[in-house]
Amino acid sequence: MKLVTAIVQDKDTTKLSNAFVKANIRATRLATSGGFLRSGNTTFMIAIEDERVPEVMEIIKKVSQKRKQFMVPPISLDASGDHAGAYPIEIEVGGATVFTQSIDSFEQF
Amino acid sequence: MKLVTAIVQDKDTTKLSNAFVKANIRATRLATSGGFLRSGNTTFMIAIEDERVPEVMEIIKKVSQKRKQFMVPPISLDASGDHAGAYPIEIEVGGATVFTQSIDSFEQF
Amino acid sequence: MKLVTAIVQDKDTTKLSNAFVKANIRATRLATSGGFLRSGNTTFMIAIEDERVPEVMEIIKKVSQKRKQFMVPPISLDASGDHAGAYPIEIEVGGATVFTQSIDSFEQF
Ligand code: NI
Ligand code: NI
Ligand code: NI
Repeated sequence: MKLVTAIVQDKDTTKLSNAFVKANIRATRLATSGGFLRSGNTTFMIAIEDERVPEVMEIIKKVSQKRKQFMVPPISLDASGDHAGAYPIEIEVGGATVFTQSIDSFEQF
Repeated sequence: MKLVTAIVQDKDTTKLSNAFVKANIRATRLATSGGFLRSGNTTFMIAIEDERVPEVMEIIKKVSQKRKQFMVPPISLDASGDHAGAYPIEIEVGGATVFTQSIDSFEQF
Repeated sequence: MKLVTAIVQDKDTTKLSNAFVKANIRATRLATSGGFLRSGNTTFMIAIEDERVPEVMEIIKKVSQKRKQFMVPPISLDASGDHAGAYPIEIEVGGATVFTQSIDSFEQF
């Protein structure tokens, strides 16, 4: 067994939980903050058979990897009352930090 | 030293905390959700000397293992006003997922 | 890579977070309770290159180690209305429990 720990952005949490359920992978969710990613984040712990680690990694990557997104920035008015710069800008969202560790023993009671 | 991570149902959390205190075992509690067990759960982290791991496992098993419980389901009234089916039913509660990992170094400042 | 897990008192959390940021160390924070330290505590997870582990330990030790502090205990009135014992007393605050573990693989998506 391996323990996969994945730290992802809060915004990807629900989609990732659903993807794990669909793949019949049991993931425990921890509310976390700070650290690896700038905005709010969530940590998933997944204890899994060695041979399924690549599948877990693939799901995390697919759902949570860094990608570009367009957003319209909040409008700021200048002195003349004209609103400047309501053009969509490209921002980076998502991203996951994932590490795996060995498990010595695994039991369910 | 070993790290024992135990994911148990919320309903067994207080009893398990008390059992650890009584046995002089220091356990750190994390609020977690989803995953190994269907309902709300709590994760305990216990860093412990190798030779005490069986004792920790025994406590977790004793307090948290799956067991049957009788409950009376909420009463539903049928059209005639009779209440149907207020018979106790047997449900399964509790359950723990526990894994142990090696610790390279352990320090207290 | 190593995983450093540090459990510190809540009161040292902000200072420790800031010290990690200043040292360019990414730490993920978990709200935890009970266990290693009597009062409220916070757990930091730090995945870090092996050679930086001593630096991480040094920061944790510097910020969070047990130290003496003077506090004035809350005043209790005796029957006569005199307040007794408003002398500062020395108490112990802080303290950290830290353990390190091996990481098999580390990836960022
Ligand atoms: Ni969060
Ligand atoms: Ni819970
Ligand atoms: Ni706390």
